[in-house]
Amino acid sequence: MEKQNKLAIIPLGGLGEIGKNMTVIRYGDDIVVLDCGLAFPEDEMLGIDLVIPDITYLLENQDKIRAVVITHGHEDHIGSLSYFLKQIDVPVYGTRLAMGIAEVRLKENNVANYTLIPIKPGDELTFGSIQVGFIQGNHSIPDVVGIYFRTPVGTIVHTGDFKIDYTPVDGKVIDLPKFAQLGNEGVLVLMSDSTNAERPGFTKSERTVGAVLDEAFNGAKGRILLATFASNVLRVQQAINSACKNGRKVAIIGRSMINVINIARELEYLLVPEGTIIDIDEIKNYPDNQILILTTGSQGEPMSALTRMALSDHRKVAITPSDTIIISATPIPGNEKSVSKTIDALLRLGAEVIHERSMGIHVSGHASQEELKLMLTLVRPQFLIPVHGEHRMLITHGKLAQDLGIPKENIFIGTNGQVFEFEQGVDGVTGKLAGKVTAGKVFVDGLGVGDVGNIVLRDRQMLSQDGVLIVVVTMDKGSGGIVAGPDLVSRGFVYVRESGSLMGEAKQQVKQALDKCEAGQVTEWAAIKTSIRDALGKFIYEKTRRRPIILPIIMEV
Amino acid sequence: MEKQNKLAIIPLGGLGEIGKNMTVIRYGDDIVVLDCGLAFPEDEMLGIDLVIPDITYLLENQDKIRAVVITHGHEDHIGSLSYFLKQIDVPVYGTRLAMGIAEVRLKENNVANYTLIPIKPGDELTFGSIQVGFIQGNHSIPDVVGIYFRTPVGTIVHTGDFKIDYTPVDGKVIDLPKFAQLGNEGVLVLMSDSTNAERPGFTKSERTVGAVLDEAFNGAKGRILLATFASNVLRVQQAINSACKNGRKVAIIGRSMINVINIARELEYLLVPEGTIIDIDEIKNYPDNQILILTTGSQGEPMSALTRMALSDHRKVAITPSDTIIISATPIPGNEKSVSKTIDALLRLGAEVIHERSMGIHVSGHASQEELKLMLTLVRPQFLIPVHGEHRMLITHGKLAQDLGIPKENIFIGTNGQVFEFEQGVDGVTGKLAGKVTAGKVFVDGLGVGDVGNIVLRDRQMLSQDGVLIVVVTMDKGSGGIVAGPDLVSRGFVYVRESGSLMGEAKQQVKQALDKCEAGQVTEWAAIKTSIRDALGKFIYEKTRRRPIILPIIMEV
Repeated sequence: MEKQNKLAIIPLGGLGEIGKNMTVIRYGDDIVVLDCGLAFPEDEMLGIDLVIPDITYLLENQDKIRAVVITHGHEDHIGSLSYFLKQIDVPVYGTRLAMGIAEVRLKENNVANYTLIPIKPGDELTFGSIQVGFIQGNHSIPDVVGIYFRTPVGTIVHTGDFKIDYTPVDGKVIDLPKFAQLGNEGVLVLMSDSTNAERPGFTKSERTVGAVLDEAFNGAKGRILLATFASNVLRVQQAINSACKNGRKVAIIGRSMINVINIARELEYLLVPEGTIIDIDEIKNYPDNQILILTTGSQGEPMSALTRMALSDHRKVAITPSDTIIISATPIPGNEKSVSKTIDALLRLGAEVIHERSMGIHVSGHASQEELKLMLTLVRPQFLIPVHGEHRMLITHGKLAQDLGIPKENIFIGTNGQVFEFEQGVDGVTGKLAGKVTAGKVFVDGLGVGDVGNIVLRDRQMLSQDGVLIVVVTMDKGSGGIVAGPDLVSRGFVYVRESGSLMGEAKQQVKQALDKCEAGQVTEWAAIKTSIRDALGKFIYEKTRRRPIILPIIMEV
Repeated sequence: MEKQNKLAIIPLGGLGEIGKNMTVIRYGDDIVVLDCGLAFPEDEMLGIDLVIPDITYLLENQDKIRAVVITHGHEDHIGSLSYFLKQIDVPVYGTRLAMGIAEVRLKENNVANYTLIPIKPGDELTFGSIQVGFIQGNHSIPDVVGIYFRTPVGTIVHTGDFKIDYTPVDGKVIDLPKFAQLGNEGVLVLMSDSTNAERPGFTKSERTVGAVLDEAFNGAKGRILLATFASNVLRVQQAINSACKNGRKVAIIGRSMINVINIARELEYLLVPEGTIIDIDEIKNYPDNQILILTTGSQGEPMSALTRMALSDHRKVAITPSDTIIISATPIPGNEKSVSKTIDALLRLGAEVIHERSMGIHVSGHASQEELKLMLTLVRPQFLIPVHGEHRMLITHGKLAQDLGIPKENIFIGTNGQVFEFEQGVDGVTGKLAGKVTAGKVFVDGLGVGDVGNIVLRDRQMLSQDGVLIVVVTMDKGSGGIVAGPDLVSRGFVYVRESGSLMGEAKQQVKQALDKCEAGQVTEWAAIKTSIRDALGKFIYEKTRRRPIILPIIMEV
């Protein structure tokens, strides 16, 4: 891939997984990076706050990076910028809204130096040998673009996250003619969103939600609380529209909801009539049927406003039986249970809850099968790289493309770090898998980036299952005799006050192990520790069938 | 509820939650317990193996308990028997298959004394003033019954877990005429399965899966691996039938699959032609297209056979690109992510995977809305208690019943421990909520039953997030001076080898805290420990934004 006349596409994230989208486009000495996202931790990543892509490859090739280009302002596409820009100083290009949201994050993370450059759909920029263009798209956030890259080997089209919405709320229909024009000119590679590749049919227009909201608002007798993704600005717009028609004031709860609404209003992506928005503390000044509360928590996140309300633990809002709660979102895979619990808790408080199963209160932001086929038909690429989705979705997307006549060998299903290489040959351009570069997950835990790895996670996993049992002994430096202890301290193992005899017996086991060491003239600390660990571990397992982490600590005086 | 002429229904589990089903029926001095199930732990129940119902109420009323009656052999209906029967010695009645499965569990759990009495649908038994009858049902396990209770106050009908299958694989159609007969005689209370109350329509017959399996088997060129619930004997039967038609031998993997198949064959619920089943070690003696492997792991359980295969970590079976893997099950809520990961891992190995989204490879064992309406229409109860499901499903079930004309005030949506009380009055029987009895979750962790409570779980939660940091100091008994230490040991906090300076600074913080104590003549250990914890906690949070559990330990010499 080092050769000058080769084009390389290297996804560093987002392939065969959800989140942390990042793709490297390289031709010769020019690199453009598409998106710079984060992922949220999976269940087994205990204590981890965020997951970002491993950018070793980019650090090694810093001098070649000309730009980062951003498709839209979702966290899984911009969320790593703070970490990236602290290490690599390059300009970032994206739509005004995406740049607005990114800037808030950069400031929050104390990133001092950054260059964010707003672009508009239709703009074209040149970075060395790579010409980059932006195409209007549709998605669950406004101001979203697909991006194409013209290179000496051929044109790459990346759809970004997209759906086809003929009647978008902001009137900005995805620029299908532009995709068609690129197709007519000839496209080498299409990289296309696979999230909904398993869904037959056509994703509904965002506008259809508006009518459903109107109906729900008309039916509500008390307050309405509506939870959705903060970034779904056009959903928020429709909720505010319904509130206005219904004579309701709008109060906003939840940090991310407040942030995004502020940016969106400032940049005029969200249009709110004067006097509509009130402070949450003012809601008591209005009758219940004149109130809409917009809130975060559509995913049942433990600390979110809606979850706190469901647990009667919110400082400002107490749910009552006359409230109608609308959850205008689908649970992201993995969140089903927490969403379900939130709904149950709200119902127990007597509230009416309108959620996803009740049809039409939410639509997806991703293209279903018929839209994917339409995109393939307009762009007619020589090669397809399905992106953005779990592995099985990429495969399904690939099968759809085969049905449309793209040869199987021209469909590349890859994993992160895979180098897809394209080269001009005698009979046209050939493409192949050409090795891998470093790629993977870097864990962010508090202020630590990458300092929690598999060893720490394995310990957390063990601690979470059966806790920890600490044995402390103070020994004489000269004689090796016990001066104090052994003392046993545990956390997360058993409730000690009710397990006095077990802990007493355990202490005896440690004493016996120490006596044995003394008798056998074992004086090496490591060996003594192993004896304690083995004897105690065996005893505890026999008595309880648990395996706490056993930590022997020897103090020397 | 102590009065002689009152009938009480007290659910101790299964109401507004998934699992651990148990209901008390009491009239005067006679108690019959319906089902005795367990639940699997939720994500936040760290290290817990099983959850069983709190049976305090039954222990207090042991002398009145005449019998336990079981609807079917699923773990959420029989899985607590081992714990129950160790404390309360009463006979257990259930179908042959349910009793067969229960007996295996009782033996595994070393329960010495038990009386399991097989019953057949149509049987009636008398326990004091309560007459109990069993009605043939349909579900995702054979030999399932609904149960009715005739009492002096009126008749209770409990559907058990049910669906209506007009063409069940074993030919045993749910005994709708019996439900109708009870309805004609007059039913006071119907307790009915709410699991699928949110699903419109009619649940498909188990038999429809057979045709889909046949087709999948015909299309497979190599080995077939089929994962389903071990207890879904009729699904297993259909898979074996398809294998036989297709000229395939059947090998079985997974302890629970082997157990259930053995019992089901022994009791003749599963009919397998001679020579069909082979040992897993024999599969290499047959061509790939003559092999079906039945396996556990349809829920992506970490230790299950299919998950191990997906991770190329199974001792006996290595997945190859010519394998077809059929996952004939739907993810139970909470398992979506692990199932999805298993599918992705299998696809990465190149195998063909047929899973739930491909229509028809699985059908539910629970009644959808039209079936629930049919049941309500046949039984025509005075009161409805929706059971078996999360709170919102109970509510939806209640709304369906209202549509059919049952007055809202006669529909009781309760929680575990609620006493539903019925009494003969002048104008007929009245029903009301009459207080609560002790009910809740008892955690089983290894051999411990109930010894892990909220304090231990909270510690495990904290340990899982940021680990533990232990500070040990040996101090002089007389002077209070430091003799050894402070030493710092951590687990699950940071990778210590790469955080030497942080740990060094942390040690300094502890030393300063100790110096301050000495200077201030603080000699109380508790106060010294608090100083250490505060100083270290603050330092660590500032440096890392993490909050490990800090455990100061002082040794005295």
